Formats: sequence, C-alpha cells, structure tokens
Amino acid sequence: MQKRIKLTIAYDGTDYCGWQMQENGITIEETLNRELSRLLKEDIKVAGASRTDAGVHALGNVAIFDTTTRIPAEKISHALNQSLPRDIVVQESEEVPTTFHPRYVPSVKTYEYRILNRTFPIPLCRHDSLFIYRPLDIEAMQKAAAYLVGEHDFKSFSSIGGQVKTSIRTITELEVTKQEDMISIRVSGTGFLYNMVRIIAGTLILAGQKAWPPEHMEEILEAKNRRAAGPTAPARGLTLLEIRY
Amino acid sequence: MQKRIKLTIAYDGTDYCGWQMQENGITIEETLNRELSRLLKEDIKVAGASRTDAGVHALGNVAIFDTTTRIPAEKISHALNQSLPRDIVVQESEEVPTTFHPRYVPSVKTYEYRILNRTFPIPLCRHDSLFIYRPLDIEAMQKAAAYLVGEHDFKSFSSIGGQVKTSIRTITELEVTKQEDMISIRVSGTGFLYNMVRIIAGTLILAGQKAWPPEHMEEILEAKNRRAAGPTAPARGLTLLEIRY
Repeated sequence: MQKRIKLTIAYDGTDYCGWQMQENGITIEETLNRELSRLLKEDIKVAGASRTDAGVHALGNVAIFDTTTRIPAEKISHALNQSLPRDIVVQESEEVPTTFHPRYVPSVKTYEYRILNRTFPIPLCRHDSLFIYRPLDIEAMQKAAAYLVGEHDFKSFSSIGGQVKTSIRTITELEVTKQEDMISIRVSGTGFLYNMVRIIAGTLILAGQKAWPPEHMEEILEAKNRRAAGPTAPARGLTLLEIRY
Repeated sequence: MQKRIKLTIAYDGTDYCGWQMQENGITIEETLNRELSRLLKEDIKVAGASRTDAGVHALGNVAIFDTTTRIPAEKISHALNQSLPRDIVVQESEEVPTTFHPRYVPSVKTYEYRILNRTFPIPLCRHDSLFIYRPLDIEAMQKAAAYLVGEHDFKSFSSIGGQVKTSIRTITELEVTKQEDMISIRVSGTGFLYNMVRIIAGTLILAGQKAWPPEHMEEILEAKNRRAAGPTAPARGLTLLEIRY
C-alpha cells in the first residue's frame, strides 16, 4: 500500500547549492532522494515546501514522498539520519494523507535573518549570520519593520525570476530583536516572493544605518519597483525556522 | 623601541590541531606567528595564555608578542584580520607593559561547555556543542555543580599529562543553565588543570543522567583519582570565553 510521508528537515546550507536539483552542484533535494532511495530500495523523489537558495539554512523545512515501505513512518527519520551527511538532519517523519502537499496546503512560514553587529566578526557565527561593522539603530529597524506587517503588494521586495500571478502577500509577524551583538529579524507569513526575506533584511539594514527615516518604507512599498528597496542580504544569514500547516 | 602587544583572539577551533605549535597539523599559534611575521616584517613568536586543545574554540584567548613596529598597537588587529583565515579573528590589540605575561600574571578564566539535548541534532550547532539524545536533569546537574565551587583538590578532574606542582584550584563560579534545548555550563576560575573543564562537563552529564545522586560529587573530589570522575567531554563543546587580568 502506498503511503505519503512528511519529513521535517534541518540543514546547514553552507556547502549546498540550495534545495532544488540542478546540474552545477550538490543540493539538499538530491541528497535526500539518494539516501531515501537507498534506504527504502525504491526510486524516491521528494517534493519540498520551500526551495531555499544556496547557502540558506533550515531548522524546519518540509518535504513529502510516496512509498510502499513497511518501515513505520516515525522510524524513517532515525534510519535516514544514519546515512545522511552531518549537515542534514531529519527532525521528524510521519505519515500524512495522500492529499497533503507541502506547497499547496495553506501554511505559515517563519524565517529568521541574523546580523552580528560589532567591531570584529566572531568566527563561530560566520556561517549563520551576516557581519556588519557599522552600528545599526535597532529602534529605526523596528519602526521600519512595522510598515511591512499586514497585506501589501511586495513587488519592491521581490527579485526578478519569480513566476507568480500576484505580488500581494501577507506578513503576519515581523520582529526585530537584539541579544548582545546579535540582531534577529523574524518574519512570519502565509507566502513569500522570491528573495523577499533577504530583500526585507537588506532594506531593514539600510533603515538601521539611517539611510532614510522609517516612514520611507511606505514609499518603497508604493513604488512597486525592486530598485526602490535595499539590496538582497547574503544567504548565510537566513534560516527557515518553521512551517506550520 | 621594542614594545609588547597583547592580542585578544577569537577562533573556531574545528579545523585546528589546537593552540600550540606541533608537527602534525596547523595550529592557531603558528597561524598567528606566520601572519604577524608577514605583516610586521619581523620574526614574531606569540606567547599564549591558554593552550587550548584541538577542536576547542575561543572568544577571548590572549597572547602577547614583542615588536619594534611603528604600526600603532590598536591598528594591528585591523591589519592582521585582513590576512588571517576566516576562522581566526583578533578582537583587540593593545600595548601592555613589557612585564605583562598572559600566563604568569593572575587572571580569571571563563569557559563555556554547550550541550544540545533533544531528539535529533541541529546541523548548525554541530561544531560548537555536544549533542546528547537522552534527556538530562538540569536540576541534578546544578546541584552537582555546586559541590565544585570554591577551593578544592581537583586531582580527580585532571588528565595525566599536566605537569603541575599541585592540583588545588579555585572555581569562583559554576553555572548550569538551559535555554530551549541548549544546556550551558559556565565555569570561572583562577586556574585550571589539564582537561579540567571537559572532565567537569563529562561528570555533570553523568549527574544529569542520574548515574548517581549529586552528593556523590564529594566522593569524586575526595577520591583524588581520575577514574572516579566522568569521561572527558569532546572538545567541540568547549569555548574559552574570556580571560580577565
């Protein structure tokens, strides 16, 4: 009997060319396909919830696959982690209805972008945060962030290349916090455009550098033009924390 | 005019054979000597405060060296960081009296040992914490830790190989805390025996696994025998946070 398995996957994206299969380097998707096919002795093809870019990390990305294996669903994580490289760890495996698809069932995704803001970088933080020397004004970042919460046309916050009908999206939460020298931008929403979180981070960094007052965020949204927003912040600072269905 | 420079150094020890010069691999000390000699065009030999083992990290290890350079002391950190590999970053450089020696001037060192305690490991934490699946009782660890604070003969907490006259040492602070799934053991003291912090961590892990009641810590101290204490916890969980003079 065929059943559908849902995996919750954590990875350090540093050494991967992102999630999606491609010819130029090793991806998370192909590594999962390879090890699942070996383990279950079937040709397994996972379908992922979020096709994270090269260098982006995850604590809780989600993927599904169909299988006829007799291994109990919840044991697959344990077995799979034996053969996966140490930078990919399945956190949970469970059976779901065959109608469940991680991209087409409504969900809330939460991302975190981390910025280390101090005089010199800390080596142990180099893979999962962006280092910025110039002091950032956290209050200005918080005020600017508030303009993005809710339903908006996020066209200014989307890289060309995303094929979508509409650029209207809803951000349900957007929090900027600081602990010692580490600034965290946490953003939740029902859907994100291509590079949207990294462009939000790049734009909030400009707000923190006082490039313009927080109110300018309104104009950036209204412009509906990628060039109105800040740069796309580097991938290494970004982690997909969670997808709630 | 010769002057003495003090460096405060952070590093990710993952890819190094520890601090001290040796023939079998690259060390932090030799990397600093090489890049300082290149930068200052002198034969520089640093003397470090703490000869951390292979795989141990630092936020604030200290080293000194003597030089006749005209580069202002506080600029050396900036210049040196340009050529150092990304896993070593000098946090501060300052001139100190030529009588200052990081090993012979009294100091308080603070170390942190991190333990990730959950069902599955998190890839981004794999280099700077020890993963333990079995749930640890944080309260038992805290109670056991309390027995070590103060002046004691720590012979049971010392690996053979340390050449010291006495194994009496003073722990000024020892705190076990937990944030989400990450347990942190923070220990401060005026001096530590060889592998002492890692053996303390290994022993507190046994206490957290209820291998014996917290009071047993007294017997371990009294035994003055390495075999009475727990195992030496792996290097990757250990970071030298700070040395205060």
